[in-house]
Amino acid sequence: MKNPKLPTLTDILEAHQRIKDIINCTPVHTSRSLNHALQSQLFFKCENFQRVGAFKFRGASNKLERLITEIRPDIVATHSSGNHAAALALAAKEKHLGCQVVMPENSPPVKIEAVRGYGAEITFCKPTLVARETTLKEIVEKTHAVFVHPYNDFDIIAGQGTAALELLEEVPELNCIIAPVGGGGLLSGTSIVARSLKPGIQIFGAEPAGADDAFRSIKAGKIIPSINPNTIADGLLTSLGDLTFNCITRYADDILRVSETSILEAMKYLYERMKLVIEPSGCVPLAAVMEYPQKFKSLKTGIILSGGNIDFSSLSSFLG
Amino acid sequence: MKNPKLPTLTDILEAHQRIKDIINCTPVHTSRSLNHALQSQLFFKCENFQRVGAFKFRGASNKLERLITEIRPDIVATHSSGNHAAALALAAKEKHLGCQVVMPENSPPVKIEAVRGYGAEITFCKPTLVARETTLKEIVEKTHAVFVHPYNDFDIIAGQGTAALELLEEVPELNCIIAPVGGGGLLSGTSIVARSLKPGIQIFGAEPAGADDAFRSIKAGKIIPSINPNTIADGLLTSLGDLTFNCITRYADDILRVSETSILEAMKYLYERMKLVIEPSGCVPLAAVMEYPQKFKSLKTGIILSGGNIDFSSLSSFLG
Repeated sequence: MKNPKLPTLTDILEAHQRIKDIINCTPVHTSRSLNHALQSQLFFKCENFQRVGAFKFRGASNKLERLITEIRPDIVATHSSGNHAAALALAAKEKHLGCQVVMPENSPPVKIEAVRGYGAEITFCKPTLVARETTLKEIVEKTHAVFVHPYNDFDIIAGQGTAALELLEEVPELNCIIAPVGGGGLLSGTSIVARSLKPGIQIFGAEPAGADDAFRSIKAGKIIPSINPNTIADGLLTSLGDLTFNCITRYADDILRVSETSILEAMKYLYERMKLVIEPSGCVPLAAVMEYPQKFKSLKTGIILSGGNIDFSSLSSFLG
Repeated sequence: MKNPKLPTLTDILEAHQRIKDIINCTPVHTSRSLNHALQSQLFFKCENFQRVGAFKFRGASNKLERLITEIRPDIVATHSSGNHAAALALAAKEKHLGCQVVMPENSPPVKIEAVRGYGAEITFCKPTLVARETTLKEIVEKTHAVFVHPYNDFDIIAGQGTAALELLEEVPELNCIIAPVGGGGLLSGTSIVARSLKPGIQIFGAEPAGADDAFRSIKAGKIIPSINPNTIADGLLTSLGDLTFNCITRYADDILRVSETSILEAMKYLYERMKLVIEPSGCVPLAAVMEYPQKFKSLKTGIILSGGNIDFSSLSSFLG
């Protein structure tokens, strides 16, 4: 596999300058009771309070700013199960661009509503990567939209890295950081920033055992896509791309896999003790700390709570 | 009715000095989409992020600091459906005092667990005010504990006022403020601070129509206790005391009553759009803005989100 050009700390610092007046600088929360229970010090970067309710607005904003400077597109397009779509839709709306979105027909209603609310045009497809890509290709051919990949993109990765940048600026004493990994955009950006600013820091990706393509890919030294991934973490069903695979291979230490039970337990904890609404995908890093407490004992660990887009009514399915 | 001595702005400023290193200075959140939908500017003081998950820790801390200076009790006691009990239990634990709590047997499990977790001894009683008071009297006689009233107390009211104090320091341009009203401690403290700092500000209490003793009491000019109040807002079942009745009569503008449907709608909104876990009682002020949007149109309104203690599993009862 040839090595693609990866973003550097400088790219992420530039991305932050580009987008800092558009995004929310999200707060960092802590919990005494959780620190006590896990004998650890956890610092939660609350991207559920980011615009559109997820970190994805960082990458989409950075990408759009770059595109507008370079090629001034009329329409942008993407495929996404939700958060990237909502992020691109809002970023496009604010720049008065059109936005075409291909969404799997089983996307959470709250995410579909959000994309529609930001004025994007939605085309539904079967919930497979092939269906997404085929449908998107048709849309792009028809509308001449510029495709914005949800994660395997230089500017998207640089944008997502700004969350960890802010976290490390606020809590420079971190000696460990964890991000969820689906397509790998967030973990890539996080890894570049963290390794550059603190070479000795431990960097983990966390993913559901039922969608563990990142774990298997990194172990195998090549991309092994997920076949029929199965998890409540609907934002982590995608597989790594060549850029994210290379970033993670080069900069991250390990991928931790967690059970569905742990994800739910983490979600309940974040809900009841920290009063935070976090979607299942965003609960995966805390689930990793709960499953592997020895790894994090006495460390200062940063956790990126990646998003909070979950239907109030769909909660009933988690309350078994 | 004779006029009892009420706290002043000075008392609340002193309370803040006394407790500011113990409490969390909670953040103020805003929502573009909600402001747009309601054509208003809302500023939410997030007391769900207060220690023990509710504003009650402010009053309990202030009261305990005063008691320790004045009479150095060994044990304190109270009756409460939950948040005041948890607050007193934690404040007592940190000062190495014993704590006895009388709780209605139908209190939410998450609140019972919290009180127990902070090391207080719980005695359950029937869910009536008479049962609470009788049981508490027995406990006080047996243990010689000092009773700390959940709301009808000078120092408790002064402590609760510190939430509005912080809110008005952060957002001095507010021209309206709303707090939920149960026993009236929070609304009393809020009213004193707001009227003193900004004489022209509009001050509202918000309460469930099914537990509208404050509304009826203020209209009648005398305390009319609730008989069999019925609402999902379990923190607002109590009736005004003489101190809180006097504070509210003197300083607040009006009490707004809201339906159970509005409370649930507000809760859903806070959950899905603002990613905040707020217990039903804390959703009542936003429910008031949703029910009476004309009153708040184009105003800058501060809302005290009083607490976030709600069982993950009990949510299923709200998802009908």
